[in-house]
Amino acid sequence: MTDLLTPPAQLEQPLSAEELSSLDGYWRAANYLSIGQIYLLANPLLREPLTLEHVKPRLLGHWGTTPGLNFVYAHLNRLIRERDLSVLYVTGPGHGGPGLVANTYLEGTYSEVYPHVGQDEEGLRRLFRQFSFPGGIPSHVAPETPGSIHEGGELGYAMVHAHGAAFDNPDLLVCCVIGDGEAETGPLAASWHSNKFLNAARDGAVLPVLHLNGYKIANPTVLARIGERELRALLEGYGYAPRFVEGSEPEVMHQLMAATLDEIADDIAGIQSRARAGETTRPAWPMIVLRTPKGWTGPKVVDGLPAEGSFRSHQVPLSNLAHDPEHLAQLEEWMRSYRPEELFDAAGGLMPELAAQAPRGNRRMGANPHANGGALTRELELPDFRAHAVDVLSPAETSSEATRVLGGFLRDVMRANPETFRLFGPDETASNRLGAIFEATDRAWEAEILPTDDHLAPGGRVMEVLSEHLCQGWLEGYLLTGRHGLFSCYEAFIHIIDSMFNQHAKWLKVTRDIPWRRPIPSLNYLLTSHVWRQDHNGFSHQDPGFIDHVVNKKAEIVRVYLPPDANCLLSVADHCLRSRDYVNVIVAGKQPALDYLTIDEAIAHCTRGLGIWEWASNDDGLEPDVVLACAGDIPTLETVAAAALLRQHLPELRVRVINVVDLMRLQPESEHPHGLSDSQFDALFTTDRPVIFAYHGYPWLIHRLTYRRHNHPNLHVRGYKEEGTTTTPFDILMLNDLDRFHLVIDVIDRVPTLGTRCAGLRQAMVDERLRHRAYTRECGDDPADIREWTWPA
Amino acid sequence: MTDLLTPPAQLEQPLSAEELSSLDGYWRAANYLSIGQIYLLANPLLREPLTLEHVKPRLLGHWGTTPGLNFVYAHLNRLIRERDLSVLYVTGPGHGGPGLVANTYLEGTYSEVYPHVGQDEEGLRRLFRQFSFPGGIPSHVAPETPGSIHEGGELGYAMVHAHGAAFDNPDLLVCCVIGDGEAETGPLAASWHSNKFLNAARDGAVLPVLHLNGYKIANPTVLARIGERELRALLEGYGYAPRFVEGSEPEVMHQLMAATLDEIADDIAGIQSRARAGETTRPAWPMIVLRTPKGWTGPKVVDGLPAEGSFRSHQVPLSNLAHDPEHLAQLEEWMRSYRPEELFDAAGGLMPELAAQAPRGNRRMGANPHANGGALTRELELPDFRAHAVDVLSPAETSSEATRVLGGFLRDVMRANPETFRLFGPDETASNRLGAIFEATDRAWEAEILPTDDHLAPGGRVMEVLSEHLCQGWLEGYLLTGRHGLFSCYEAFIHIIDSMFNQHAKWLKVTRDIPWRRPIPSLNYLLTSHVWRQDHNGFSHQDPGFIDHVVNKKAEIVRVYLPPDANCLLSVADHCLRSRDYVNVIVAGKQPALDYLTIDEAIAHCTRGLGIWEWASNDDGLEPDVVLACAGDIPTLETVAAAALLRQHLPELRVRVINVVDLMRLQPESEHPHGLSDSQFDALFTTDRPVIFAYHGYPWLIHRLTYRRHNHPNLHVRGYKEEGTTTTPFDILMLNDLDRFHLVIDVIDRVPTLGTRCAGLRQAMVDERLRHRAYTRECGDDPADIREWTWPA
Repeated sequence: MTDLLTPPAQLEQPLSAEELSSLDGYWRAANYLSIGQIYLLANPLLREPLTLEHVKPRLLGHWGTTPGLNFVYAHLNRLIRERDLSVLYVTGPGHGGPGLVANTYLEGTYSEVYPHVGQDEEGLRRLFRQFSFPGGIPSHVAPETPGSIHEGGELGYAMVHAHGAAFDNPDLLVCCVIGDGEAETGPLAASWHSNKFLNAARDGAVLPVLHLNGYKIANPTVLARIGERELRALLEGYGYAPRFVEGSEPEVMHQLMAATLDEIADDIAGIQSRARAGETTRPAWPMIVLRTPKGWTGPKVVDGLPAEGSFRSHQVPLSNLAHDPEHLAQLEEWMRSYRPEELFDAAGGLMPELAAQAPRGNRRMGANPHANGGALTRELELPDFRAHAVDVLSPAETSSEATRVLGGFLRDVMRANPETFRLFGPDETASNRLGAIFEATDRAWEAEILPTDDHLAPGGRVMEVLSEHLCQGWLEGYLLTGRHGLFSCYEAFIHIIDSMFNQHAKWLKVTRDIPWRRPIPSLNYLLTSHVWRQDHNGFSHQDPGFIDHVVNKKAEIVRVYLPPDANCLLSVADHCLRSRDYVNVIVAGKQPALDYLTIDEAIAHCTRGLGIWEWASNDDGLEPDVVLACAGDIPTLETVAAAALLRQHLPELRVRVINVVDLMRLQPESEHPHGLSDSQFDALFTTDRPVIFAYHGYPWLIHRLTYRRHNHPNLHVRGYKEEGTTTTPFDILMLNDLDRFHLVIDVIDRVPTLGTRCAGLRQAMVDERLRHRAYTRECGDDPADIREWTWPA
Repeated sequence: MTDLLTPPAQLEQPLSAEELSSLDGYWRAANYLSIGQIYLLANPLLREPLTLEHVKPRLLGHWGTTPGLNFVYAHLNRLIRERDLSVLYVTGPGHGGPGLVANTYLEGTYSEVYPHVGQDEEGLRRLFRQFSFPGGIPSHVAPETPGSIHEGGELGYAMVHAHGAAFDNPDLLVCCVIGDGEAETGPLAASWHSNKFLNAARDGAVLPVLHLNGYKIANPTVLARIGERELRALLEGYGYAPRFVEGSEPEVMHQLMAATLDEIADDIAGIQSRARAGETTRPAWPMIVLRTPKGWTGPKVVDGLPAEGSFRSHQVPLSNLAHDPEHLAQLEEWMRSYRPEELFDAAGGLMPELAAQAPRGNRRMGANPHANGGALTRELELPDFRAHAVDVLSPAETSSEATRVLGGFLRDVMRANPETFRLFGPDETASNRLGAIFEATDRAWEAEILPTDDHLAPGGRVMEVLSEHLCQGWLEGYLLTGRHGLFSCYEAFIHIIDSMFNQHAKWLKVTRDIPWRRPIPSLNYLLTSHVWRQDHNGFSHQDPGFIDHVVNKKAEIVRVYLPPDANCLLSVADHCLRSRDYVNVIVAGKQPALDYLTIDEAIAHCTRGLGIWEWASNDDGLEPDVVLACAGDIPTLETVAAAALLRQHLPELRVRVINVVDLMRLQPESEHPHGLSDSQFDALFTTDRPVIFAYHGYPWLIHRLTYRRHNHPNLHVRGYKEEGTTTTPFDILMLNDLDRFHLVIDVIDRVPTLGTRCAGLRQAMVDERLRHRAYTRECGDDPADIREWTWPA
């Protein structure tokens, strides 16, 4: 242990001897139960000498972080009781699952939601046995853990989840334990600055506890080895007022922690009351640096090597019990050091003076309703999106910027839900043409504001920071505590949060099987500035693969929508904002694009999810010669244009145009709840006619969704095949063979009856492509040519 | 502008009047050329009054960050000249592409690699016209830009790339400009701590320049609005000694910057000489906070609103020129303010006294050979991997831990290449059983070291930090400067760097078409602790989808290998370490698993990429009744076991077992250079027999790779379908229908001749599954059962 502060000479002693004894007893009980979960199958109270029969054959779990988590939990219990606080406990070192399970068991929450694990010796046995055991519970903090909103698997998201939970919850205190391992991750490192977006008047408080355990799996941690001077500077630089609680002697540490928490609670109350009285200075929020030995109170030495206070305590400090009787004896000695006979009564219940340490009812952290956010969710007040519809007198005549139209709707959603809806995005709300929302609110900003700033205010509800990780994590925390939101992002850069999406989707999947978890509002993505209009930013900004990533997750969870025009976007957005427990991905452009459907047609079309566009087809209800299918705004434009070219040049060819909004409709109904039946699919796409499918993203995704369909052998997909540079939008289409001329060529090549007799038309299309390619290379010298920069007439 | 430091009272004036004049002239020239690229098609030297005909019809590019980048470049030129330094210039705000292009043009590098852009008026016209123009060059710093190793698209990776470049390059100074927007990202926020891993004795230096431009697209930046006290604390907390260069008056700023750089160069030289003399204290590396107005020297006011010093200068401060003659006039006035007639001679060449500002030859930053790392690449000395082979007397008898075997080989690779090879991973080298490498080197660590630490040393070459972003970014920087490495990672969490992989793959794709770029060593991933052995960590640790993500990128770039055993892993690793310009993904388990092939068989098998395993088959060279295909170590185990069950129960059934190592062999040869021809594929997989394919990852990927194959309708794939929890390894297989018993059921259900006559066997397999499922739920109470926890006998 380095840099250990000498405890202040006149240490406050806020705990009486009885309080100290009970608090320490509670902590010992939690530690004892944590070890029991890791090690024991039976004999939970050590009523008989420990033998191998009592011990699990495979030892799993993480002891190292657990006593520290238990320590904080026990002290928060006291704080809650004394001040009647509502506290949510977010633990970044979520591998310390046994600690959270132990504490929610001790306070009674666990047995309430899992009655088969009762508050007696048999309940203890079951509690121990189930932990990280086949058919049991995960070793990490997980959806199954009462009081949790934060999976303890992938590291780095504790602070963003904590802040998301605190937004718009002025009476909530979120205590956020940050592991010093996790603190090395990018998302965590960035998320310290979340305090520049947390408003003391309107939001709750976040109390970070940086747990300097000192070690990861096999290494020390950076923050534990930079010395206290640098560490303090770093935390002050992040805008916090750190207090150091350091040591290993339990009595001293209890008094120090209790005194520190008392001071901090006063500080937070002061900050909030001043802010709520109108003070606008950004506060230096208090935080704690808790430096305790890794595996605190565990075996000091194992096999002659240091265990407590070293990386060797990370997981299971004593292992190989079957072949090492010394380890078994050491385990028993270790467990008995907590004096279980003082903690539990004859029946296995917690001693009353210890049980009294826990808060009551919903004040228990395991029962805090914010951790089961769906139970608190208020329905969004959704104004009528039809009021924002663009007028469409006939298809493909007028143009709209779809996201700009959506912006008007979102403005009204924001106005109607001033406490339960937020918009998230990395500095792109205006760039993505959602700027109307600033008529209803501002960007949240707690740092300095200058008179020249634009729509920046402490009370703002648009969360802009140049970090997709922070946007995603804040929104997750906001949703998990039962509120609503939308994340708008450049399509290519949403991959930055691929892994966070994974974890959220897995969380949602698991919660569906947990009866006491209530459904939460869906995670809604608006992906715009998409691949087909990254002509100016170029290749690095072109990636439509987030859809591919999303559809690998459970079908019950994921939804993907590609509205072809502004009215469809409105309809889809309204639908997504009403939904629960999904991840909805909406891809829509921000550039002027053709309007196709009136709002009523759009609603009908989006409700079906896909359908024949008769106005663009000429199959007249007969079997078509070819099907032109499309998904995505730009592919739809090219498909409609190709259909027009075909109508002009080959009027006798029966062309059916199908537009797909809801991509999951393409899958078999056995694979996705939205899937079309085979007969429905066949009725639309035929069983034997060529289908030319113009798709927004990587073309093989359409094959992956349809390979079981009867007509799959006749399906030809065009999409983005990783070709692009700085050029014109139409040239990018040509580079990927998705342009209207190539679609016509595809039809000629695939409809058997056309072949040779259309050689002339085919050549004309080839020539058109060459003309445009040459034009692209030469264009632009005459400003009047700008129309040709974008799309053919 | 806030918190502006008063310049020191006794400002040093290191620049003589002539030096100041030339340096400022060079900077003005770079700024002028930057604006010219954004705006002009013709009239590059303003030899005639500016008219709309000279101006691009579509204005693209980012002016805001550019003058600051140019300022740093000009001052580094002076430093290089005066001290004969080797400097690499990494610019996080890579949107400032025009600045880097302008500077490499001014110093002559640009015309050397692109002779059609000469050092005369016509060259200037071409330079301007091509910028962000169809058929031209990207608007960001890109592979096309000489001197660059860092794409300026996705933000956040400047510092990791800079450190990767500096590792093992003791004579290199990497100047790393960090945008204050980018500084909000997670990866950048974490990467400040890279200085805990940079060794002043062995590595080069990184000079961070935090460019406080103040604004993003539409918002101020966090770091510009927290006040100087907090900012200084933050940077000192990161371990740097910041120096502030703040202001807007060019003459003052030139003197201040020159003086600061002189001091810093002295500091760095001192740090390095002390370290190289044996001092081991971690230094506080110098860095610069450069606070200048956004769009410095640009229009002060546009349309009555502030431009210079505001977010309105982010991109193009003057737009809509065709309809606003006032803007056109303002543009001309702005460009003329740089006095181009003083900067360029009659022919359009840079004035000699300005040209003399640039360093010479390879000292020019655009020509620094480290930025074209392939040109410096030394071949890896690869010891014979056969020496590490495990003995295999007969297939499927013995077991090995594949990654542990690989660890021995990597140890020898490390020993043979003590300056050009590093291993990267998030704190998991030992956990992933590559620990033998610590016989050859230690973990790199510049922070405090305690006597109890394990293999931690300043000179270590294993880069462990709990951030996949840092591991990936450091390795990218190391590779891009021509060295070699391997990134070992938990399979599920590699998604954390999905987006970084995207950018690197795109970089590689583009460099293939740039003749002067030399091939660089491949980016090698070892994904272990994979989905099928995340029984204990559970659902949050299960995701085999990185492969899906990777195969969306260009086929020429990506390679995916699933070696089935230890010897195959050795062969694959050797192959990958020798390769260039690829991304190689290797998936291999760390748990004991069966050995199948001798080393010679493994080499032959891996060279083919896939093949029939005759010892596991009984088709005797005849047409089989069924093909059992497999890819991945665990699916291979189940497939071999299923084949054995079939041989036992249905000896007359002709079963062919095919193992796939190189996943890309499955694709048509038209789609991937490794793809099998249709006739090869048909010869292996038949055209009409059922194929049961047991695959490591999400099953639909195999369909996506094979949907064009003749026998695709008969292909049935089993893989991970997002089902898993804390249970036994074999139970996870059963949850996903990938277990041996289910494979046998699949065979019975798909081979037409088996049907009813195998009802008994089918039921026996169903019963086996039920027995194991029930067993899983009850198992473990007897420690002797541990064998059954993993796999059936």
